[in-house]
Amino acid sequence: MQKTLKEIAQLIDGEIDGDANALITGVSGIKEASKGDITFLANPKYLPLIEKTHASAIITSRDIEKTTAKSIIRTDNPSLAFAKIVSSFAPAEVIHPKGIHPTAILAKDAVLGKDVAIGPYVVVEQGVSIADRTIIYAGTFIGHHSKIGEETLIYSNVSIRERTTVGSRVIIHSGTVVGADGFGFVSIDGVHHKIPQSGTVEIGDDVEIGANVTIDRARFDKTVIGKGTKIDNLVQIAHNVVIGENSIIVAQVGISGSTTIGKGVTLAGQAGVAGHLTIGDGTIVAGRAGVTKSIPANITVSGFPAKPHETAKRVNAAIQNLPKLYDTVAKLRKKIEELEKWINKGQSQKN
Amino acid sequence: MQKTLKEIAQLIDGEIDGDANALITGVSGIKEASKGDITFLANPKYLPLIEKTHASAIITSRDIEKTTAKSIIRTDNPSLAFAKIVSSFAPAEVIHPKGIHPTAILAKDAVLGKDVAIGPYVVVEQGVSIADRTIIYAGTFIGHHSKIGEETLIYSNVSIRERTTVGSRVIIHSGTVVGADGFGFVSIDGVHHKIPQSGTVEIGDDVEIGANVTIDRARFDKTVIGKGTKIDNLVQIAHNVVIGENSIIVAQVGISGSTTIGKGVTLAGQAGVAGHLTIGDGTIVAGRAGVTKSIPANITVSGFPAKPHETAKRVNAAIQNLPKLYDTVAKLRKKIEELEKWINKGQSQKN
Amino acid sequence: MQKTLKEIAQLIDGEIDGDANALITGVSGIKEASKGDITFLANPKYLPLIEKTHASAIITSRDIEKTTAKSIIRTDNPSLAFAKIVSSFAPAEVIHPKGIHPTAILAKDAVLGKDVAIGPYVVVEQGVSIADRTIIYAGTFIGHHSKIGEETLIYSNVSIRERTTVGSRVIIHSGTVVGADGFGFVSIDGVHHKIPQSGTVEIGDDVEIGANVTIDRARFDKTVIGKGTKIDNLVQIAHNVVIGENSIIVAQVGISGSTTIGKGVTLAGQAGVAGHLTIGDGTIVAGRAGVTKSIPANITVSGFPAKPHETAKRVNAAIQNLPKLYDTVAKLRKKIEELEKWINKGQSQKN
Repeated sequence: MQKTLKEIAQLIDGEIDGDANALITGVSGIKEASKGDITFLANPKYLPLIEKTHASAIITSRDIEKTTAKSIIRTDNPSLAFAKIVSSFAPAEVIHPKGIHPTAILAKDAVLGKDVAIGPYVVVEQGVSIADRTIIYAGTFIGHHSKIGEETLIYSNVSIRERTTVGSRVIIHSGTVVGADGFGFVSIDGVHHKIPQSGTVEIGDDVEIGANVTIDRARFDKTVIGKGTKIDNLVQIAHNVVIGENSIIVAQVGISGSTTIGKGVTLAGQAGVAGHLTIGDGTIVAGRAGVTKSIPANITVSGFPAKPHETAKRVNAAIQNLPKLYDTVAKLRKKIEELEKWINKGQSQKN
Repeated sequence: MQKTLKEIAQLIDGEIDGDANALITGVSGIKEASKGDITFLANPKYLPLIEKTHASAIITSRDIEKTTAKSIIRTDNPSLAFAKIVSSFAPAEVIHPKGIHPTAILAKDAVLGKDVAIGPYVVVEQGVSIADRTIIYAGTFIGHHSKIGEETLIYSNVSIRERTTVGSRVIIHSGTVVGADGFGFVSIDGVHHKIPQSGTVEIGDDVEIGANVTIDRARFDKTVIGKGTKIDNLVQIAHNVVIGENSIIVAQVGISGSTTIGKGVTLAGQAGVAGHLTIGDGTIVAGRAGVTKSIPANITVSGFPAKPHETAKRVNAAIQNLPKLYDTVAKLRKKIEELEKWINKGQSQKN
Repeated sequence: MQKTLKEIAQLIDGEIDGDANALITGVSGIKEASKGDITFLANPKYLPLIEKTHASAIITSRDIEKTTAKSIIRTDNPSLAFAKIVSSFAPAEVIHPKGIHPTAILAKDAVLGKDVAIGPYVVVEQGVSIADRTIIYAGTFIGHHSKIGEETLIYSNVSIRERTTVGSRVIIHSGTVVGADGFGFVSIDGVHHKIPQSGTVEIGDDVEIGANVTIDRARFDKTVIGKGTKIDNLVQIAHNVVIGENSIIVAQVGISGSTTIGKGVTLAGQAGVAGHLTIGDGTIVAGRAGVTKSIPANITVSGFPAKPHETAKRVNAAIQNLPKLYDTVAKLRKKIEELEKWINKGQSQKN
């Protein structure tokens, strides 16, 4: 498969600076690219790579000056443009299941929309509804009275427990468990008694959930993942957590019970959030941060316990300089001792 | 479904302060409750919510004074009482598999107790025994010569490897893997050779294990989870770990190989424990703490490396105040310089 | 099953110091051993256990002096020797699936080598090839056009997405997901648009991957796990990560997108590595360390942000001593105040 730069530029509303008839045969990252590939530059930090890359053409933002013999296509959003190009180059590589596999076990009263595809060994219990064009891969389990929206894609070996609601255009990757019991016990004389977890989970439209994620059902009410929120692999979302729209939850994050996360929030990798807290809209929690108190909207926090990033940076710089501080204090102590000696000497001379 | 306050009070041995004939139509958390709901107050920190909640009635402890127009039911343990009420309100919502599904594959010599339920596409290998009233959901795999106790509940897509012992009244949530090989290699000239993991796993009675947990089999002997211990989602328990009875292991905790955890221990979320350590009975390891040394019984540790909580708090407060300390030291240095100048001046005046 | 010490010594090229005709009936850890067991001592830290253990014989290194009445077998590598002994004692305990189970669903064009074993309810899509003597357990899914090498062992409920390459003699434990989409989005006006993840995953020969691990496919190109690398449970490996040969990735580690890890690297438990970094060959990242910058070869780093271990230790010691430092500074301040008072007094006396 090959395209001219001109064809590519048309696809992304780009402006060519170079040979419009050059043939592009593949797509690649700027570091890994070979001759014939097109690549892109979104992060100015990689600017020096324009010269080093073996790619034949580079998508850049509108403000990049051409300092290379390579062809450039300038466009508004190089990442998005490049995503379009990657799609246009991708062969039809993902062959999803089609139709209802004869080994799929569907309860008699399950309601299936048009063009639903269900792979082998899928189990769909009673009272479930699955809307049009949704695709479910092999070995997935959908518990009773769950509702799955349209054009949703659920990969293999997923477990969705009873009475879960999943929106439309949702993607759930393999091994993920939605709706397992929340972790709730009441301890009487040291023995832990299970508190019934009678609530549900509600996954909004356009959510993506990574592989081997766990999203627990609520104790009562529901655990909610807002529309458009994207969740990476191995994330833990406890009972009664409510996440707003269009948030980003990166891999291995843990969110404890009954915490509310706003809209457009980012929780970076391996961060943790304690229970019963609120994180305001648009706030960013840095990687590995541990949030122990509620956080207002539109700030960045980092560290453990998490603090406003500027404070955390100052504290962290202070920590890194500690060995120096000990030296300084030791020197000051010596000087004071010298002063004291001098004074005592002066006094004893006087006396 | 609706109940009078009187009916509810009888259920929980409670004392009504309000209208005994009021109708309750649902249960809810104190923040989320609507008119007609009953809720509960266990944590005194939420006391101000008694006025704010929209609930029609509130379960409280015996010592709460009534400061609201809402109805109150006082009882000994509001959490436990509320759990009972939730159960009494819950419709028969969880419909477990019943009987042996024709697609379940059972080895000829597998021994099943009375009223065992096995869902579709379950695989039970040779030599397995499953005791009375145990329920196994779709897609779960039970390796050869494993033994499962009575009234145990194993959800979908669980993998239990060979020769594992699971007690009675155990709950294992979806996606969990029990008995995978311990992570053991001996490195010779930089190449890692696998050490056979010939041991097993033994899960005691009344244990609950969350979703996507991993509990490795022992190198030899056995990895042990004590009776009544509760394990949250995405926890890692390495080979030869021994956990005592009635401990609580919160989500995303990792316990390294051959570590022994006592009875009634709590490991809070995202904590880690290094290998070959001992944690004494009743000890609490705070969230995100990293335990690098053995810990005696009945203390609370936090931080990384984990220290007694009071020490860790003092150290942490010291860290947070570091920028101030730097200021203080800078001022002291300046004062010393001034003293030195003054003294030098004095001396030069004398000389 | 029983062996004489003489038989055992021959097996491991060991030198007996004790009764060569003594009968050994089992193997065990040094702490857990009973009479009749053989055990081993590899870590000098456990030397005092030689006296305490109930084992009847102990494998040690060549340099251990006999200070006990128990029998000792000295050998070059006690761990490896003991592994051999454990294997020799182990009954044929793991009974792998044999042949192609009639419920396995194999695409018509799937190519199977000699003596391949495929368990019940396995799904193998079109274009897949599986080489000689590979074993696949129940419920595992292999997506289209994936290639699996020889003598590879894939346990139950694993998901391998399309176009993945898995080498020979690889072991993949239950619940692991290989080839799920990388976590890549481009945000336009606060809404996250999915970037196609068109790349693949390539797992080298002799790799072992633990349970419930996630290894994402590349955005383009491929995510690579080098030959001989061993990965523990619940590890997250993001899109476009490249790991060299014979590295060790311990449980719950997370590696962010496009990071390159060298050969012979160790990432200890719960460590995290940010994206687009390089970690040099032979480097060790300590447990719970958070790597935020690239690291050269052959050093040990720890802490967060990760620093050379000696620096981190110095910084950490400084942190632990902070309360003392505050005391010191307070005392210095007092002394300076006294000096100032004394001087002021002197001055006022003079004036």
